[in-house]
Amino acid sequence: MLSKNRIKQINSLQIKKYRQESGTFVAEGTKVVLELLRSDMRIKEIFAVPEWILSNAEKFSNTIITAVNAVEIRKLSAMTTACSVVAEVYMPKHPNKPEFKKGVTYLALDGVRDPGNLGTILRIANWYGINTVLASNDSADMFNPKVIQAAMGSAFRIRVDYCNLPETLLEARNNGIDVFGTFMDGENIYNAEISHGGIIVMGNEGHGISDEVSSAISRRIAIPCGCDSATAPESLNVSSATAIICNEFYRAKK
Amino acid sequence: MLSKNRIKQINSLQIKKYRQESGTFVAEGTKVVLELLRSDMRIKEIFAVPEWILSNAEKFSNTIITAVNAVEIRKLSAMTTACSVVAEVYMPKHPNKPEFKKGVTYLALDGVRDPGNLGTILRIANWYGINTVLASNDSADMFNPKVIQAAMGSAFRIRVDYCNLPETLLEARNNGIDVFGTFMDGENIYNAEISHGGIIVMGNEGHGISDEVSSAISRRIAIPCGCDSATAPESLNVSSATAIICNEFYRAKK
Repeated sequence: MLSKNRIKQINSLQIKKYRQESGTFVAEGTKVVLELLRSDMRIKEIFAVPEWILSNAEKFSNTIITAVNAVEIRKLSAMTTACSVVAEVYMPKHPNKPEFKKGVTYLALDGVRDPGNLGTILRIANWYGINTVLASNDSADMFNPKVIQAAMGSAFRIRVDYCNLPETLLEARNNGIDVFGTFMDGENIYNAEISHGGIIVMGNEGHGISDEVSSAISRRIAIPCGCDSATAPESLNVSSATAIICNEFYRAKK
Repeated sequence: MLSKNRIKQINSLQIKKYRQESGTFVAEGTKVVLELLRSDMRIKEIFAVPEWILSNAEKFSNTIITAVNAVEIRKLSAMTTACSVVAEVYMPKHPNKPEFKKGVTYLALDGVRDPGNLGTILRIANWYGINTVLASNDSADMFNPKVIQAAMGSAFRIRVDYCNLPETLLEARNNGIDVFGTFMDGENIYNAEISHGGIIVMGNEGHGISDEVSSAISRRIAIPCGCDSATAPESLNVSSATAIICNEFYRAKK
């Protein structure tokens, strides 16, 4: 039987402060945990109901699996709907700063606050083979359970570096890396020369790219709007814009 | 002072059944209500705190505005954060079926259940000038407050027709309209002939396009993945995929 303390500790991982203290985070639900097992992430412990263990037995080796009952799994889970598996996972460590190479595409997030947006963006990055994402320190935490859920496994395959974003971008720019940002008055992305990749900066949900980060941008681009200004929305959602821009960068390389 | 019954009635509009009974829905928050005032929607009543009325006075005419205090607005609002304006709005009526024209692009949603996704998709449609969206009856309700919130005003500018989707699509197809659907084994959208528009069908979050709707599809397309299959996500989120496809259709027309 699971101790009350262990349940409490797993529940505490909903909060960033406790994740940082323990160096672990929680992933739950069959789809996400199976993606976890396919990934390079180090798993601390998996809690699952016996039926789940039975039907997924061939998918794990060298993993500590603790069988729990339906009541216990509900106590461990933060999901509103029934869930049969919860995993505690070590956060990966990246001791060195990422190195930026010419010809490669990267993403940078300047204050993307909504965990659902961050998760969706990680899934987009993964789809287009973007392996490194920079994030300003005021962006949502990638180990927030809602991010893990929305990323559908992509959070296990992408390196996210939280950093002083203006400083990091300026350094990359000084090393000859193009730094792209989306602005209403930017160059139409259909015509822009983007085939050499670079760092694509996406801004905050309400305020876009901050002034500080703006000054590190070398290339201002825009997504064309197919609607006259009287009936157009003010902007696209940040994850929609990321999807379109990443697709354009990938397309330009082909 | 607002009656308890009026507060209760406004709160009841969180639920589809009561929206259908009253023929109205709720929109709240400054950004959304200002978009509402710019639109053709018929407003039944706006409730706002005096400060809001004062600072937005020039934006409304012929609208019933009721001044309420901070306690009352909190009771009317379903938002977790403080809000200064709540509107009750008549749902638009579309007595006739939409007519599909060759050369025009439409969207169709086959069981898109998440209100956040639906709202984001309406914003994308609006951005690309798509004015009519079909939705299967099991899709999220467009007047769900979460849809209104995520659509950021675009819900007021787009016609959404809930219908028997396979039947409607088949009828359009029989009238010479191309019906596109996204499938893993579809034709690469970068090479597909899509410049004549048609109806773009997007599927359910977990299960994609249903078998019934599949049989009405005339053109199977695919979004290229820039990642090898071992490390690729299973799919993109439905709103990300919609953004990419709508961008490609718009791009092909230019």
